[in-house]
Order: sequence, then structure tokens, then C-alpha cells
Amino acid sequence: MAEEVVLFGVRGSPFTCRIEIALKLKGVQYKYINEDLDNKSPLLLKYNPVHKKVPVLVHNGKPVLESLVILEYIDETWQGYPILPEDPYERATARFWAKFIDDKCFPAIFKSCWGEEKEREKAVEEVSVVLKILEDELKEKKFFGGENVGLVDIVAVVIGFSLGVYEEAARVELLNKEKLPRLCNWIDDFLSNSFIKESLPPRDKLIAYLRNYYRSDNASK
Amino acid sequence: MAEEVVLFGVRGSPFTCRIEIALKLKGVQYKYINEDLDNKSPLLLKYNPVHKKVPVLVHNGKPVLESLVILEYIDETWQGYPILPEDPYERATARFWAKFIDDKCFPAIFKSCWGEEKEREKAVEEVSVVLKILEDELKEKKFFGGENVGLVDIVAVVIGFSLGVYEEAARVELLNKEKLPRLCNWIDDFLSNSFIKESLPPRDKLIAYLRNYYRSDNASK
Repeated sequence: MAEEVVLFGVRGSPFTCRIEIALKLKGVQYKYINEDLDNKSPLLLKYNPVHKKVPVLVHNGKPVLESLVILEYIDETWQGYPILPEDPYERATARFWAKFIDDKCFPAIFKSCWGEEKEREKAVEEVSVVLKILEDELKEKKFFGGENVGLVDIVAVVIGFSLGVYEEAARVELLNKEKLPRLCNWIDDFLSNSFIKESLPPRDKLIAYLRNYYRSDNASK
Repeated sequence: MAEEVVLFGVRGSPFTCRIEIALKLKGVQYKYINEDLDNKSPLLLKYNPVHKKVPVLVHNGKPVLESLVILEYIDETWQGYPILPEDPYERATARFWAKFIDDKCFPAIFKSCWGEEKEREKAVEEVSVVLKILEDELKEKKFFGGENVGLVDIVAVVIGFSLGVYEEAARVELLNKEKLPRLCNWIDDFLSNSFIKESLPPRDKLIAYLRNYYRSDNASK
């Protein structure tokens, strides 16, 4: 059967990047449709009527929603590169850290750069706490997944890529090389991976876009 | 090998109930340790140093954290009753609704009963919106999992049990039988399931406890 795989995303969204990284690691051919957040397509609204958000992966006409759910779907649907480990305990550990990054790290990173002024300082402190927890979790491993990029690494694109972009765009300092040496090494290794490199949007363009977007008071969108 | 399964929980917590339901459905023998939220045990803090929260499932000495992650771990570790469906697309759909219940339904239900006074009215409206979405998802199915209780049903203990308890304890009305007939039927079927029944705490005692707990201004805990 000729497979049809379509990804609805937004260039620069780390949640979209996650899906692109996973599809590329698996070697899945897909069509990418870029959404305009100010004018969402009828197809996106049809496929994700509950949240009306990207990313949406449409596989043979059927939509899969929510980036963590999509990553598991990709891993279960296509053979080849393993995104999750095989062992149930290691899978649970990876899922725990993926959730930690979504629930604790990304909101703090986002708020510290683009939140309301009064909440930014507290958010910067939160970022340093949660990144230290991740630093300790890395231990002596190259990637969170061990020798190779796995679920947690893919999810952590919000740290491996977005964090640096947000820091520069919002002119906030979040990453201290002396306090977080392992995490900084991980970022270097993460950004050197060719599958990841080709899934990321152009950095300078994104920084310019973000500066303009948040300057024009679109923060609530 | 003699297996050791220990669940650290809090009686009355729907997140703890989820794990008990799943273990009973699988027929797994376990030891239950009830935690006092005002005086958490050193073991709980050792096993969950990041969030310091229940439930924690300790399997042969290794902790598994976060209720959704624990449910997947249980399903992958023990044969027998299937908690998640087999088909990857159905699995993704179940994971989507489980996440929807955790991200959208439970926070709104909780806020509408125990939130700050000024946010309660808005939360009550939110509850009616998200429950209507679940009502529509049920379609003609008996359970979210089809003919049998599955992942989404287990996760939805926050609606099948806690919602009614919170309504009565906080004296708030959230469930309209005329507007949500399928969901109300689902609650009846859910509460009739023997594995679920034996996993739930005594209703009246919990209502009395909640009234007392929140009256004594413990809301921020």
C-alpha cells in the first residue's frame, strides 16, 4: 500500500521539530504542511478540533495528535531506529523524563523569556533548578538515550535548540556552562547529530521572527 | 524470582486509584503503603526525589513514577488483561484522551471545587466544555476502551468517581444528566465494575475528609 504521511507543523516550534527528528531517524518520507498560527487551515481544524494545535501527523488519512503521543506512534508504526528502549523499566524512565521536560522545563524556559515581566525572575530560578535535575540525570551518558539519541533527547529539543534561541532572542541568560557542564556537552552532541541538524529551522531567522512576534504584543496567542 | 510490588499511595487520590485498578485488573499481588501528605515517608522521598509525590510503584526495588507512566509500565510488564489496545493507532488515541483528561479535565474539576473563589465560576464552565468533548468521544461505546475498561477508563476515575465525591464535598454541581447522558451511563457502568469497586476508597469517609481538609485552609498543599 502506498503510504501517505503528512505533518502539519509550524517552523520553529520545538514540538514540530520533535516529529521531524523522529520521522527522519526512522527514514519515513513525509509531506510537510506549514501552518500559519494567525490563520489556521481548515484541515488542521478538522484534524485537531479539540486543541486546534500543531503538530498533527496524518497517516493514511488518520490524525495523530500531541507530540509525545505522536513520537510513541511513530516508534510503534515504523521499524528501524528505536526511539524508545525495549525494556519496560527503561521505557518508563524515558517516559518520566519526557513528561518532566514538558511539564516542568519547557513552561519555565518559555516563561523566563516570554512570560509577563513580574513572573520572569521566578521562572529563571525555576529553569536553573530543573536543568540541574536533568544535568544529574545525564550522568556519564552521551545522550539521555545512552550512546544514541532516544525519546528524551528528541523531546529535549526544547533545551538542545529552543533554549539557546530563546535566550538570544529575549536576551536572557539561562544556561551556565560551569554549573551545567554535562548538559552543555549534551547540547553540543545533540546539535552535531545530522538527523537533528536537518530537522531544525534556520536559527537566525527564528531569532528575528521571535523578537518581532513578541515585540508586537502577541504573547497571548 | 519472587516478585516484590509495592505501591506508595494516598487513599482517596484518584491517581493512586488508577494504579490499584490496573494492578487488580492484571491480577498482580502488591503491598500498599499509605502516605501521609503532611509527613511524607523517607522511602517516598528516596523513590521520588524529583516530585516527592504519590503514586510510586516499586517493582523489585525499582521505582516507577507518574500515574500514566506507571499504567503503561504495568501493561508492558504483566500479561493478561490488556490495558492499552494492540493497534498503534488505537493506542495513540487512548494516550491522547488520557492526556486530555489529565491536562484539561482534572485541573478544571479540581479548580471548580477547591480553587480560589474568583476562579471557580470559570472553572465550572470549563468543566462543562471538556466533559461534553468526552461525552462525544464515548459515542455508542459502553467504555472508552470499547466493551471493556481500558486505559482511558482507568485514567477517567477522576470523572467516574472523584467528580461525584468532589461535587458533594464542595457542594458544587458539575454533572448534568440531561446534557451528558452517555457520560452518566458510563459512570454507572464504571462504578459497577468489580475491579474498580474494590479499588475505590469509602465514599462517605472521603467526602468528610475533603470537607475538613479544605475547610482548614490546606488548599495550597
